[in-house]
Amino acid sequence: MAYRIEKDTMGQVEVPADKLWGAQTQRSRNNFKIGAAGSMPLEIVYGFAYLKKAAAYTNCELGVLAEEKRDLIAQVCDEILDGKHDDQFPLVIWQTGSGTQSNMNVNEVIANRAHQLAGKTIGEGEKTIQPNDDVNKSQSSNDTFPTGMHIACYQKIVENTIPGVEQLRNTLQAKAEAFKDVVKIGRTHLMDATPLTIGQEFSGYVSQLDHGLKALKNTLAHLSELALGGTAVGTGLNTPAGYDVKVAEYIAQFTGLPFVTAGNKFEALAAHDALVETHGALKQIAVSLNKIAHDIRMLASGPRSGIGELIIPANEPGSSIMPGKVNPTQAEAITMVCARVMGNDTTVTVGGMQGHFELNVFKPVMAAAVLESAQLIGDSCRSFEENCAVGIEPNYLKIKSLLDNSLMLVTALNTKIGYYKAAEIANKAHEEGSTLKEAALALGYVTSEEFDAWVKPEDMVGHQ
Amino acid sequence: MAYRIEKDTMGQVEVPADKLWGAQTQRSRNNFKIGAAGSMPLEIVYGFAYLKKAAAYTNCELGVLAEEKRDLIAQVCDEILDGKHDDQFPLVIWQTGSGTQSNMNVNEVIANRAHQLAGKTIGEGEKTIQPNDDVNKSQSSNDTFPTGMHIACYQKIVENTIPGVEQLRNTLQAKAEAFKDVVKIGRTHLMDATPLTIGQEFSGYVSQLDHGLKALKNTLAHLSELALGGTAVGTGLNTPAGYDVKVAEYIAQFTGLPFVTAGNKFEALAAHDALVETHGALKQIAVSLNKIAHDIRMLASGPRSGIGELIIPANEPGSSIMPGKVNPTQAEAITMVCARVMGNDTTVTVGGMQGHFELNVFKPVMAAAVLESAQLIGDSCRSFEENCAVGIEPNYLKIKSLLDNSLMLVTALNTKIGYYKAAEIANKAHEEGSTLKEAALALGYVTSEEFDAWVKPEDMVGHQ
Amino acid sequence: MAYRIEKDTMGQVEVPADKLWGAQTQRSRNNFKIGAAGSMPLEIVYGFAYLKKAAAYTNCELGVLAEEKRDLIAQVCDEILDGKHDDQFPLVIWQTGSGTQSNMNVNEVIANRAHQLAGKTIGEGEKTIQPNDDVNKSQSSNDTFPTGMHIACYQKIVENTIPGVEQLRNTLQAKAEAFKDVVKIGRTHLMDATPLTIGQEFSGYVSQLDHGLKALKNTLAHLSELALGGTAVGTGLNTPAGYDVKVAEYIAQFTGLPFVTAGNKFEALAAHDALVETHGALKQIAVSLNKIAHDIRMLASGPRSGIGELIIPANEPGSSIMPGKVNPTQAEAITMVCARVMGNDTTVTVGGMQGHFELNVFKPVMAAAVLESAQLIGDSCRSFEENCAVGIEPNYLKIKSLLDNSLMLVTALNTKIGYYKAAEIANKAHEEGSTLKEAALALGYVTSEEFDAWVKPEDMVGHQ
Amino acid sequence: MAYRIEKDTMGQVEVPADKLWGAQTQRSRNNFKIGAAGSMPLEIVYGFAYLKKAAAYTNCELGVLAEEKRDLIAQVCDEILDGKHDDQFPLVIWQTGSGTQSNMNVNEVIANRAHQLAGKTIGEGEKTIQPNDDVNKSQSSNDTFPTGMHIACYQKIVENTIPGVEQLRNTLQAKAEAFKDVVKIGRTHLMDATPLTIGQEFSGYVSQLDHGLKALKNTLAHLSELALGGTAVGTGLNTPAGYDVKVAEYIAQFTGLPFVTAGNKFEALAAHDALVETHGALKQIAVSLNKIAHDIRMLASGPRSGIGELIIPANEPGSSIMPGKVNPTQAEAITMVCARVMGNDTTVTVGGMQGHFELNVFKPVMAAAVLESAQLIGDSCRSFEENCAVGIEPNYLKIKSLLDNSLMLVTALNTKIGYYKAAEIANKAHEEGSTLKEAALALGYVTSEEFDAWVKPEDMVGHQ
Repeated sequence: MAYRIEKDTMGQVEVPADKLWGAQTQRSRNNFKIGAAGSMPLEIVYGFAYLKKAAAYTNCELGVLAEEKRDLIAQVCDEILDGKHDDQFPLVIWQTGSGTQSNMNVNEVIANRAHQLAGKTIGEGEKTIQPNDDVNKSQSSNDTFPTGMHIACYQKIVENTIPGVEQLRNTLQAKAEAFKDVVKIGRTHLMDATPLTIGQEFSGYVSQLDHGLKALKNTLAHLSELALGGTAVGTGLNTPAGYDVKVAEYIAQFTGLPFVTAGNKFEALAAHDALVETHGALKQIAVSLNKIAHDIRMLASGPRSGIGELIIPANEPGSSIMPGKVNPTQAEAITMVCARVMGNDTTVTVGGMQGHFELNVFKPVMAAAVLESAQLIGDSCRSFEENCAVGIEPNYLKIKSLLDNSLMLVTALNTKIGYYKAAEIANKAHEEGSTLKEAALALGYVTSEEFDAWVKPEDMVGHQ
Repeated sequence: MAYRIEKDTMGQVEVPADKLWGAQTQRSRNNFKIGAAGSMPLEIVYGFAYLKKAAAYTNCELGVLAEEKRDLIAQVCDEILDGKHDDQFPLVIWQTGSGTQSNMNVNEVIANRAHQLAGKTIGEGEKTIQPNDDVNKSQSSNDTFPTGMHIACYQKIVENTIPGVEQLRNTLQAKAEAFKDVVKIGRTHLMDATPLTIGQEFSGYVSQLDHGLKALKNTLAHLSELALGGTAVGTGLNTPAGYDVKVAEYIAQFTGLPFVTAGNKFEALAAHDALVETHGALKQIAVSLNKIAHDIRMLASGPRSGIGELIIPANEPGSSIMPGKVNPTQAEAITMVCARVMGNDTTVTVGGMQGHFELNVFKPVMAAAVLESAQLIGDSCRSFEENCAVGIEPNYLKIKSLLDNSLMLVTALNTKIGYYKAAEIANKAHEEGSTLKEAALALGYVTSEEFDAWVKPEDMVGHQ
Repeated sequence: MAYRIEKDTMGQVEVPADKLWGAQTQRSRNNFKIGAAGSMPLEIVYGFAYLKKAAAYTNCELGVLAEEKRDLIAQVCDEILDGKHDDQFPLVIWQTGSGTQSNMNVNEVIANRAHQLAGKTIGEGEKTIQPNDDVNKSQSSNDTFPTGMHIACYQKIVENTIPGVEQLRNTLQAKAEAFKDVVKIGRTHLMDATPLTIGQEFSGYVSQLDHGLKALKNTLAHLSELALGGTAVGTGLNTPAGYDVKVAEYIAQFTGLPFVTAGNKFEALAAHDALVETHGALKQIAVSLNKIAHDIRMLASGPRSGIGELIIPANEPGSSIMPGKVNPTQAEAITMVCARVMGNDTTVTVGGMQGHFELNVFKPVMAAAVLESAQLIGDSCRSFEENCAVGIEPNYLKIKSLLDNSLMLVTALNTKIGYYKAAEIANKAHEEGSTLKEAALALGYVTSEEFDAWVKPEDMVGHQ
Repeated sequence: MAYRIEKDTMGQVEVPADKLWGAQTQRSRNNFKIGAAGSMPLEIVYGFAYLKKAAAYTNCELGVLAEEKRDLIAQVCDEILDGKHDDQFPLVIWQTGSGTQSNMNVNEVIANRAHQLAGKTIGEGEKTIQPNDDVNKSQSSNDTFPTGMHIACYQKIVENTIPGVEQLRNTLQAKAEAFKDVVKIGRTHLMDATPLTIGQEFSGYVSQLDHGLKALKNTLAHLSELALGGTAVGTGLNTPAGYDVKVAEYIAQFTGLPFVTAGNKFEALAAHDALVETHGALKQIAVSLNKIAHDIRMLASGPRSGIGELIIPANEPGSSIMPGKVNPTQAEAITMVCARVMGNDTTVTVGGMQGHFELNVFKPVMAAAVLESAQLIGDSCRSFEENCAVGIEPNYLKIKSLLDNSLMLVTALNTKIGYYKAAEIANKAHEEGSTLKEAALALGYVTSEEFDAWVKPEDMVGHQ
């Protein structure tokens, strides 16, 4: 492989000749061989592209960067955002905890690519723009990386997570409507209980997701705060006056998202409670999804030896050995996602709690975990909706048979004959394997007419 | 010990003669010998007292309970809330997951105590009011326990957690003000960085807690929703029309807190995402507190071989073997609380994710965890504030000595001579153990006058 | 309340006159009002009593403590172990992270009680034995607290946890034996699968617990290592030669447990990986128990609308509103314990990871979490065994009906006619609601005789 | 793109013409668009290659598979293990929870590739070997996937994790030896304490890793148990007699690792406590590594305003804005890995606890988490060793200066003049900023000669 020489403050490094990155990126590749290469999420690189362009515009506007440099930087940033340089960002999550090397990776790629755009050959001549003095002007890794990760996470949540959860929520809502009159046996403690409708059951799922979406949106305000302008320790050293507010405005303009400069830059560098907060809501949604998906697979269990009240789509052969088996695979995929998200919550917590003095150095792992959870929740909700939820149908025969057979309809008699006598009826029917009515009449607590008038499942599903 | 006989639908049970509880409480004591007795938090019992009283008022108003019964029930509830019967609730967290037995414990105590108040002897004669048919009228464990736990958790948070966190936040804010001009060396990656003021450093802590308080308050809306009125499966079976809204109003009135009936009762029984959401915010605050307390103990480390920039109060001898040692014990207590809260978050998550069908049966463990976290955060913030934060003082001599000695002041030269030359100066000073100025002059990059004019720590603490 | 004055190196403190503790205990009470009083587990106090007695014997034997002092100390320790002074240890978990104040609590109680035993009045005259110089001789909080917590945890595990888990394991094993010929439908993905016996199903539970017990026992070697003899930082400063080995021998002798001195005292003070290791095994057992208990409650679900293959004991009325309802309450209690243990694992991890330099200051919270988990697992296994597992019986009718009805018996045909034709049969039967045999004959893939010969559930439960 | 038609029991699917996979793989791609494609770890695919080959050999030996088929299957498996088909396994973790689709992916690739090896064209003619009936003979996804994941995890741990941890452990041991006489101030509660040597300090790290390695090795026995032979539900249906033992022997032979058939196949399919157990040990090591790496970065903090007792290698420029800054980046990378591993432990726990009946359907996410942790720990230990630990040197000047200045040397006087007088000396020196000796002499508790004789740091580092 051909190499060229790149330099930084520590000396010279050999870099593959066909790559745009420079010395510090290469050092990071050499020094951090941990896990698969390129694990740093591209979304963060794109977040950097937005902020580097915004910084260039702001620096220029505030008189500390020439227009030509601004335009070169912006042009490369646009190329990065177009996905033209995805292979120029080979670094891993497991690098310096401030993400310095990924910041430098971006700075170096922009500087070298700008050199090319200026008609020069990389590695030859004075760099047209300097990675530190120009691309990184008015910036530090300490404020750029958290800015890049906020941009990436915010974008992922509004473009993937929320629409995905809403798609599932809306289909569950449609199912709740469609099946609002299908009365079925309720189950508490996994045991037979009083009846409700499928519509009511599904309305609970919808309500969970509505609360989850609201909780997630509540966290976006904190996430919209950008560290940029804090530079090294939060004081904004080496930034021109007004820089922080303006650069956030440019980022908001370029991304179309309501970013603002952080009210307190010291927090914004030293703590990532915003990620903790956002992931807390993602975890809450995972808790909801686990409940919903597990309920649905239990309700669809069978076909003959389970509960079998719901029929879910058969998307693929379920077993390599048991012919004709169909499994709730979408429920399995999404509950595995839930397990992952719950684990990511621990990761984000453990990273978030360990900020020290002016800097939290768990930025890459925290950002990667939030992005992964946001992506997986959005994707798996969509997958579950399209390949399972939308096709859910009641198994009317099974539902009716279970309902008619239930002992818990006796609860309707509480207000007529009292809890104790009602219990006596249920116990008798249970022990004798008889129907409630038979037991009730045998005990003489009600007449046949009373029983029929009082014990009507469709009247027991209530006001809710 | 003397016993009397109590009965339930399963038969007779011996109960200690001097206790107010009945058959089902006693069965629970016999069947669940898990951990220390009485672990079910009293706060939940008090939550029950509020709701039983509210239910009695609502039932009476809606014509299904006699006024005399209402008044007897309410009178016992008031006694419970006055702490007169704390020893009548011996059950453990580790019982039925719906908290049925604690609901019955309350029902039984109210019924038996009402019997006494009616001038009768417990165990003798027909019960004046029935635990199931009267005290529990229009209720189920499935809606009372989650109502009781929401009342308990909400109250704990507004009466203990939030005031405790605010007390600490306010003192940190006062310190930030008091020390806003004390310039000190910054530290990133635990390494020397550019300067900032103690005021700025502490303002970051304040901002963290402000965000945490906001996040916690965001969760209160979900927590204010009460399940009561859902009864067994969420349909409200056996409740009179209008019951759910009215009973929530009574609870709001009795507690003085803005409780409302849950918009969806099916969620309210089957999922406890509200607790997951609230505890997520408690966990976020724990993340913040861990950062703040650990920073403070590191800044106070020494007295001679640590950082020693802060002086914290000496409250007790620190060592049983090392004489004269003073330790950051309040920081240790609060960071241990943080570890506990983080663990509780896992518990709440694991419980919350496992709701099945119409009921989540991890109610007691979830509620106990939220209450514990809410209590410990409030208490430890107060303890930390009163016994540590309020007494924090800068060690001015140490701060100045470290600042004057720092190499990172060189950053001020970036915008004058460029990053690379500035780095050369810092490296030279580091290698030779010289001052920055000596190195700068030796390299000839600046004059003595320029250095003095450009490298001023007090000018480096910026716009923020 | 009457008070006396006690002194320490920081001055005078008022102590309730009727209490045996001294100045430092009282300071801790005043300075750490966090959560309920007395939360420091008594088991740790008893661990201290063992080690204080052992230290006194060792010190005496090595010539640094007089025999009379040794005997006085030992006498008080025995009283403590007899439970005579349980009310003298009022401190909380949330104190100094080294447990210094609990060490001093023990030192002070021993010194004051020894003063009484010597016929004197506490608070009057020179102390007969000094808390620091005599009771704490050759010790530091830094080595006593971890020693006390290892003793407490080890003892709890061998006296409570392991016997509890074994009791449940043995009953499950007996059930596996008893039901080894009861053929039933298997379920994978919650869907009908090929048959197995209840005995086989339960043998899996037994195997899980056997592996869990083995894993737990594997951790005891690490836990048997005692820090005592390391004193302040692990060097053993101020201990006589041979002290560490001998004191561990005395502790082993007094407790009857195989304690040894830690191979490396620096680890023993600065890291509590032994607790992390032990709790990891407790968490593994919780994972197993959650699976087992949840399986059993699902298998017992119904009585009419669930799976209903197992019948579990009815121990208490299950519902305050639904008469005659019986719930799997023991399963609920133990799965709530599992959620708690999983949370405790996070707590222990978060505490364990934050040792700093020569000391980990999360000792109390880590020890309390391990003790709680060990207790709850032992207790809940016993409760589950006694009140549920021992009474489990098959519902033979239901089992047979589900088995006969199953489509997955078709798997037996794979080796006769191939997977694809077998799948065709199963699909046809499923779509038409017919039996497998009907579908098989209709498709003409087998004769009636072949079907009967090849599809025999009792032949499908295999070699295992 | 060109397609060919592949079939399964549900019908026809279009598959990219140049790919070896078949209908079920393609269905999975279509139905599970969750996260990045190909996230299923290749290590598991290789585990499958071992087991498919072993199954072919066993089936042949037991008379149920022709030799030609065996050889074709084995040949493709060898190609897979040589990495020749890495691009043929495009599925994601987030699929069916039994990994059925990845099992079928392997079956299909082997069948199609075997068809090519037999000189045919895929998609044309009867398949030379059938994916279900031949490649999957005597197997089910339910026993192959857990077998594949045990192979993958075991191999990763013995080939990467253990050697990586040992490499770091050995270097730390070498450092402990090298610096065994360098006396330095100890620190407890982050505060100055009595002295010890760097060698002693590092010996604690070595002891932690030794215990961690032992704990990890303890888990390998459980992990060496293979599910293969259990087929669909653990009964071994459709396997020839003796199959399970023999197939494990072949796997042991092919991998060179001591695999055995699981003692209980029902556990082996329905629970993955072996992964829980193994990951528990990985998490323990992460706890240790976090302590060690954080200690080292704190000890290396500075260069001028921190502790500065250790000098670590400068591998890259540390800051994009602060020239000349060097950061403990390797410590940051490894502590981020620790945060990830701790999160993975939650994921594995949450997955492990949710096995239902005869199958745990969280297999892929559990296996992926264990593999990731095993890889990251091994890699990061190696990276930390090579780029940091090996180059650690003491800063002798700083160490001596801090030691000479310390007040905690007073502890040496406890056994001479008692704890209280020693405390008086320390307090006086602290308040007056004087040396211990000055304070001691001023108080008249010792003579100058006594002080010099008694207070010698090098005599205080003890027996350990």
